[in-house]
Amino acid sequence: MLRPGATIGILGGGQLGRMTALAAAELGLKCHVFTPERDSPAAEVCARVTVAPYEDETALEAFARGVDVVTYEFENVPAQTARVVSALTSLRPGARALATTQDRLEEKSFVAGLGLPTAPFAGIDSVADLEAALARLGRPAVLKTRRFGYDGKGQVKIADGMDAATAFDAIGRQPAILEGFVTFTREVSVVAARGEDGSIAAFDVCENAHRNHILDVTQVPASIAPETGRAALDAAAAIGAALDYVGVFTVEMFVVGDGGREGIVVNEIAPRVHNSGHWTIEGAETSQFEQHVRAICGWPLGSPARMGDVTMTNLIGADADTWQAILAEPGARLHLYGKTEARPGRKMGHVTRIRRRP
Amino acid sequence: MLRPGATIGILGGGQLGRMTALAAAELGLKCHVFTPERDSPAAEVCARVTVAPYEDETALEAFARGVDVVTYEFENVPAQTARVVSALTSLRPGARALATTQDRLEEKSFVAGLGLPTAPFAGIDSVADLEAALARLGRPAVLKTRRFGYDGKGQVKIADGMDAATAFDAIGRQPAILEGFVTFTREVSVVAARGEDGSIAAFDVCENAHRNHILDVTQVPASIAPETGRAALDAAAAIGAALDYVGVFTVEMFVVGDGGREGIVVNEIAPRVHNSGHWTIEGAETSQFEQHVRAICGWPLGSPARMGDVTMTNLIGADADTWQAILAEPGARLHLYGKTEARPGRKMGHVTRIRRRP
Repeated sequence: MLRPGATIGILGGGQLGRMTALAAAELGLKCHVFTPERDSPAAEVCARVTVAPYEDETALEAFARGVDVVTYEFENVPAQTARVVSALTSLRPGARALATTQDRLEEKSFVAGLGLPTAPFAGIDSVADLEAALARLGRPAVLKTRRFGYDGKGQVKIADGMDAATAFDAIGRQPAILEGFVTFTREVSVVAARGEDGSIAAFDVCENAHRNHILDVTQVPASIAPETGRAALDAAAAIGAALDYVGVFTVEMFVVGDGGREGIVVNEIAPRVHNSGHWTIEGAETSQFEQHVRAICGWPLGSPARMGDVTMTNLIGADADTWQAILAEPGARLHLYGKTEARPGRKMGHVTRIRRRP
Repeated sequence: MLRPGATIGILGGGQLGRMTALAAAELGLKCHVFTPERDSPAAEVCARVTVAPYEDETALEAFARGVDVVTYEFENVPAQTARVVSALTSLRPGARALATTQDRLEEKSFVAGLGLPTAPFAGIDSVADLEAALARLGRPAVLKTRRFGYDGKGQVKIADGMDAATAFDAIGRQPAILEGFVTFTREVSVVAARGEDGSIAAFDVCENAHRNHILDVTQVPASIAPETGRAALDAAAAIGAALDYVGVFTVEMFVVGDGGREGIVVNEIAPRVHNSGHWTIEGAETSQFEQHVRAICGWPLGSPARMGDVTMTNLIGADADTWQAILAEPGARLHLYGKTEARPGRKMGHVTRIRRRP
């Protein structure tokens, strides 16, 4: 168990690292950010920053020696980076979580192996593999690179008329996974913390709407049947336990069917705090960021109880230009990540609105 | 009006500066801390820090040129420091607030001049002044240095049997104020924000209990009559307007009399966020720190609405050793300031407990 005054090392300098560092500071902890990026959002709120590539082992070793635990804000931490850090200090979440979630085929196989529903899938290494899999899974289907995809990057939808070679070319002929199309009614996620002692604290199921493959709005509670919610939370707990996970993780799911036959299909696991959990900063007794800090420090988890009906809206690109209107709106809670350039598709901030229970 | 991405300069590196910087970061603002202290709590959460004495005008000028507005977390900013900064950028709150609140005699005269009740008082420059004032105001009375007192420092209670010379010696024969003793039932404070446009947003009246002259517990709502609460809020609004104040300020008051004859006596003005307002971080729609940031940026003030019945308890010195119990207590919100050494009397952190309205 770490003590207040300990230093958390954070791999990655984005907004997730920034909000984690802010939560750590409230608890009297120090943070040291390691990022290849100059002027990163996370570095702005920390006294200690290393700007170096993740492959710079000398810098990594100095970083790992100077902190008490290392965590990360993105799942694509290179395996060798994780190894260098793990040799010198504790990495939380651990290597198993990274290895499983960095590779879409590994991840799907892991989830299916737990007996949880997933989209039908097949590993793809060649055009021949893809042709065979398309024949089996049907169209439309989605071809995704096994590694390094996010926010819709590294994937292509294969509808009628696109041939296998064109699709495989579109993702650069990388090792891939073909996923059968799932007809869903809603997209939901479970953001949960798992403690060093195996205890689990999940936030209420979030309902997510995307725009251009990027999260647009999260609403809590989700409009799902209570049994569906329980199934979603149970699935997340099973995944956390099987990964022997310590920290906050997120499971994205589809809701399928309707009425009496509603069910969930696990889509993706993120071994980290998640955009769909940003509402917890004001909307829950303990934020996802504080929970993550508590978990990786070996501290007891806080209460995930919700404060009311919550809507979190991302501010993407030029959306952030509306900051003045949001500041003037009663009850709206504005968060900006300190990014200078509002490029299209870039997450600049978010706004949370809570309708408190009467 | 500043824009997100602007830089706030903060004079002072303590926990008030730290929590202000954390609130600024949530809104996409940068902070630059100027403090004579190495390893200060505020510097831990900022990418930009200047460690130099407040008298170092070269360092001050570079600091002032690099930021968009300067604020401070303590009222004893030297007048020359304020002048150097004001010549180069805007200082908020302004010089009038500093001049009035740095000198207890100025402050009392200012408050009395607004027609607000204060303890009876007299300026003291000599033992003869003190003897005359004691004859007029009676005993017990409190002799305080005009400048640089806080948390009970720089003051002596004069009861029967202490002669005037001994008392004047006890405070180092500095220019002083004698204050008649006020028999009060409670100590309360109003923490309020005043915007650039003169708008005011006050948090609900706080009831404060001290231990060894240091704030121990704040409870909100205060156990006072509604009219007393209104009188307290009106007094604070009058003070803010008369100082042409921009930012958060705090008015400490005594509640005197009882039942139908309850009233307030203004004790002290702090031109800054205040320990008795720490509960607003979770207990109000907008925290005192966010309000201060909004005000000094020329932004609209947020809602000061309260979330429930709140108790804030300071963690002084070794109190902070109870952090594990607090972390494990459902609903308790722990804040630690990142101070390494838990000296007796040192404010190490605080804990907020909210009983939400059913």
